[in-house]
Amino acid sequence: MSITHNLATSLSSSSSAFLAPPSFNSRGHVSLPVKSVGICKCVAAPEAETAYKTRVIRNPNMGKLQAGYLFPEIARRRSAHLLKYPDAKVISLGIGDTTEPIPEVITDAMSKRSHALSTFEGYSGYGAEQGEKPLRSAIASTFYSDLGIEEDDIFVSDGAKCDISRLQIVFGSNVKMAVQDPSYPAYVDSSVIMGQTGLYQKDVQKFANIEYMRCSPENGFFPDLSSISRADIIFFCSPNNPTGAAATREQLTQLVKFAKDNGSIVIHDSAYAMYISGDSPRSIFEIPGAKEVAMETSSFSKYAGFTGVRLGWTVIPKQLLFSDGFPVARDFNRIVCTCFNGASNISQAGGLACLSPEGLKAMRDVIGFYKENTNIIVETFDSLGFKVYGGKDAPYVWVHFPGRSSWDVFAEILEKTHVVTTPGSGFGPGGEGFVRVSAFGHRENILEACRRFKQLYK
Amino acid sequence: MSITHNLATSLSSSSSAFLAPPSFNSRGHVSLPVKSVGICKCVAAPEAETAYKTRVIRNPNMGKLQAGYLFPEIARRRSAHLLKYPDAKVISLGIGDTTEPIPEVITDAMSKRSHALSTFEGYSGYGAEQGEKPLRSAIASTFYSDLGIEEDDIFVSDGAKCDISRLQIVFGSNVKMAVQDPSYPAYVDSSVIMGQTGLYQKDVQKFANIEYMRCSPENGFFPDLSSISRADIIFFCSPNNPTGAAATREQLTQLVKFAKDNGSIVIHDSAYAMYISGDSPRSIFEIPGAKEVAMETSSFSKYAGFTGVRLGWTVIPKQLLFSDGFPVARDFNRIVCTCFNGASNISQAGGLACLSPEGLKAMRDVIGFYKENTNIIVETFDSLGFKVYGGKDAPYVWVHFPGRSSWDVFAEILEKTHVVTTPGSGFGPGGEGFVRVSAFGHRENILEACRRFKQLYK
Repeated sequence: MSITHNLATSLSSSSSAFLAPPSFNSRGHVSLPVKSVGICKCVAAPEAETAYKTRVIRNPNMGKLQAGYLFPEIARRRSAHLLKYPDAKVISLGIGDTTEPIPEVITDAMSKRSHALSTFEGYSGYGAEQGEKPLRSAIASTFYSDLGIEEDDIFVSDGAKCDISRLQIVFGSNVKMAVQDPSYPAYVDSSVIMGQTGLYQKDVQKFANIEYMRCSPENGFFPDLSSISRADIIFFCSPNNPTGAAATREQLTQLVKFAKDNGSIVIHDSAYAMYISGDSPRSIFEIPGAKEVAMETSSFSKYAGFTGVRLGWTVIPKQLLFSDGFPVARDFNRIVCTCFNGASNISQAGGLACLSPEGLKAMRDVIGFYKENTNIIVETFDSLGFKVYGGKDAPYVWVHFPGRSSWDVFAEILEKTHVVTTPGSGFGPGGEGFVRVSAFGHRENILEACRRFKQLYK
Repeated sequence: MSITHNLATSLSSSSSAFLAPPSFNSRGHVSLPVKSVGICKCVAAPEAETAYKTRVIRNPNMGKLQAGYLFPEIARRRSAHLLKYPDAKVISLGIGDTTEPIPEVITDAMSKRSHALSTFEGYSGYGAEQGEKPLRSAIASTFYSDLGIEEDDIFVSDGAKCDISRLQIVFGSNVKMAVQDPSYPAYVDSSVIMGQTGLYQKDVQKFANIEYMRCSPENGFFPDLSSISRADIIFFCSPNNPTGAAATREQLTQLVKFAKDNGSIVIHDSAYAMYISGDSPRSIFEIPGAKEVAMETSSFSKYAGFTGVRLGWTVIPKQLLFSDGFPVARDFNRIVCTCFNGASNISQAGGLACLSPEGLKAMRDVIGFYKENTNIIVETFDSLGFKVYGGKDAPYVWVHFPGRSSWDVFAEILEKTHVVTTPGSGFGPGGEGFVRVSAFGHRENILEACRRFKQLYK
C-alpha cells in the first residue's frame, strides 16, 4: 500500500467530520469540497432545483455536525500540496493507522478458521452477539485477572469506535456528556448525532451541553475536576488520544471519586493501555469502587494491527446501575442483540490467538516496535528544543508550538517536509498550539520524517 | 455444532426481545427469566436495595421494548421440554440460521487474505468505511447491472441488521415508520429504541406511532395501501421474512407510487432476493422511479452462509433526497464514518470471491440446496392438507393453522415431534394463526422433521 493510499484511506476512516455539509450557492447547487480530492464519491451529484424530494425531514442533529475542520481540510491541503509538488514523497504520520504486518501466529488462526468454515465440522452460523465464549473468557483472564471482571461482563465488538456509538444509543438523547479537551472526535460527534447537544458555538469551538474538560501541560493533562460541572457520562481516554498522557493511579482514583460523588458513569477508553511503560493503571477497574461507576472499551486494533480486521471489546460490570437500579449491561446487551450480530467469527479466532502466550508475545513485539518509533520522534523534537508530551505510554507524540496556530504549524511542516501530521485543534479547542505526530509507520519513513524535521527546525 | 447448540445461539442472535425486562419483586430483587436457560450470563446478579446506583436516568425508550414474547419464551419452553424429554432429538427449524459449509472458493479467498495480512505487501490497516472499492464495484455490477446504480451508491456493511440500526440513527427520533405485519422484529425494535414510537399497546399488540401494514393470504401478502396512513419510512422486505412472499413487479410498482405520492422513503430489504424462482424483481431498483424514493439493504448471510462471517450492503441512490434536498446518502455516509469502521477486510475478501463466476455458481448451489429443503417442507404440509405459503421464493415456509393460536401450534409441534418452529405471532399480530418453518438445516434433519410432521398430522 503506497503512502498516498494510506493517506486516502486514513482520511475516509476518520470518525470526525468526514463529509462537509454542502454549501448551497445561489443557484441551489450543492458544492462538494471533499469530492475534488477524489476520496469520496458516495455523495450526491449536484441536483437541479426541480429534483424530486421526499417529504422526510432531515434529522436536525445531523445538521449540527461540524465538518471541514479536520480531515477534509487536511485532504484539501494535501491535494493542493501534491499539485504544487507532484513528485514529493509524502509521509503520513497523521492518522493512527497501523502499518506493520500482523504476526503469523495470529493470521494462521484466522486462516485456519476460514478454512474450517468450509467443512461440516468447522462451520458455524450466527454466533452469540456478545462474542464467543472462549474469547470473552480469554479477555477476562488476560486483561482483568484479579479485578473481579468476569467473562460475562465482556462484550466482544467490531471495534471501540462502533461500541462508542452503541453505548450512545443505550443512553439516548437526554443525557449530558463530558469529554477530555482535546479528545478523539467520535465521542463528541456521536453525542451530537444522538441529540444530546445544542448547536456548535463557533466562538468557543464547542457544542452547547457538552462539558469540555481541559487537559493541558499546566494540569498534567488531567482535568481540574473542581471546575467541572456534573455530566451523566464522562468519556475518559487513557492513555490519551491525542495527547499520549496516561492517567496515574491517583488521578484515576480522583476520577472514580468524582463520578461517584456526582452519580456519573465513566466510559474509560483503554485502547492504548498496552503501550503504558510505567505503573499507570492499564484498566480503570484497578481502582477500588470503579465497577459501580465505570465501564471500559478497548480494541485489538493498535495491539495486533487489527484496524482492518475489526475486533474490540467493552466491559460493563454487573454493579453498574442506572438511577432506578436497572443494570446498564442489560440495556447494552439488548442493543448488541438488536443492532449488531457479533464480530466476524474469523476476527474472533484471530483475537483468541492474540491472547495465547505466543500471540501475547507477538503483540508485545509489535507494540515495542511502535514504541521505538515513538522514541525516535520524541528524541527528534526534544533535540530541537521543543516541549514534547506523550510518547512514553502511547503511540502519539504531542508537540507544543506555544503561541502558534496548529493549522499554521501543520501547513509549515507539510510545505517544508512533505510530512502530514494532525493539527491539535482538530481534537478540540484545547489542542490549539499542538501538533500530533503518530508513531505508526515503517521505520524508514519515521527516520526519514525525523531527518526532515531536523532540517526544518534545526 | 450440535442441534442443541444451534438453538442456543439462534436464541441469542435474535434481534427481537432477547432479554426480558426484569420483574422487580417486593423485595426489590431482579428476577431473570432468561438466565435459567443458560444462554445469557451478561446480566446483573440480583442487587440488594442498598446497592450503589448512579444518577444516570435509564433511557425511557429502552424501557418500552417488549420482551419475552418470542425467543426467550421459546427458550423457556424448549428448556422445559428437554427437562421432560431429556433424550429427545430436538431439531431446530426455528431461526433462519444457515447450516451448510461455505464453498471453498470463498473460504480460500478469506484464508489467503488472512495470510496476506502477515506480509508487508499484503497488510492493510483501516479500509474505507464504505467498503473496499473492488467489492463495491462487484456488488454494483452483479446485482444492479443496467439499473443505474453505481459503485459509489453501495455501502458495504457487517450485515443488514446492523445497517438497519445505522439507518435509524440517520433518521432520528422524529420520523414515523411503517412495517409489514408480520415482519422481521429488528425494524420495530430499532424504531422503539430510537424513540420514534409510543408505548406498546397490549390490546392490539402494536406500538403506538408505527403503521402496521397487514399482509395476509387475503391480500396476497401485499398490503392494501389505500388503508395505510402516511409514514416517513416504509420497511418492506421482499421476499418476506417470515411469510416467504415475494412482491410482484406490479405490487412493487404500486409501492413506489405510494411512496412517491406520500413523499416517503422505502427501505427495501432484499436479503433473500437470490431465492426468487419466478420473475418477481430481485431489486426495487428494477421499478422505474424507485431511486428517488427507495434504498435497499441486503446481505451475504443467506447466500453464502455468512451469518457468522458478517457481510452485507446497503444501496442509497444519489437521487434520494430529504425534504430540504439534502442527499440521504450523505448523512448515511457520515454515520458510517462516525459509528462504524467498515466490515472486516477478511470478510470483504470473501464477499469479492462470492461474486466471482465460481463464487456465484457456488452460492447458487447452496441456495439450490436450501430450496430443495423448502420443497420437502412445502410438500409435506401440502400433503397433509394445510394451506402453505412462502417457500417458492424464500427459505421460509408459512403454514396456516386457521383459528388456532400460533403458540398452541408451536407447543403441539414441539411436544409431539421435538421440532422447534417459530410461532407467527412473534413477528407481529398479523402472524397469529401461522407457524414459520425454516428450511435452513442439514437434509437428514429436514427429512426427519417432515417424517415427524406426517406422523403428527396424518
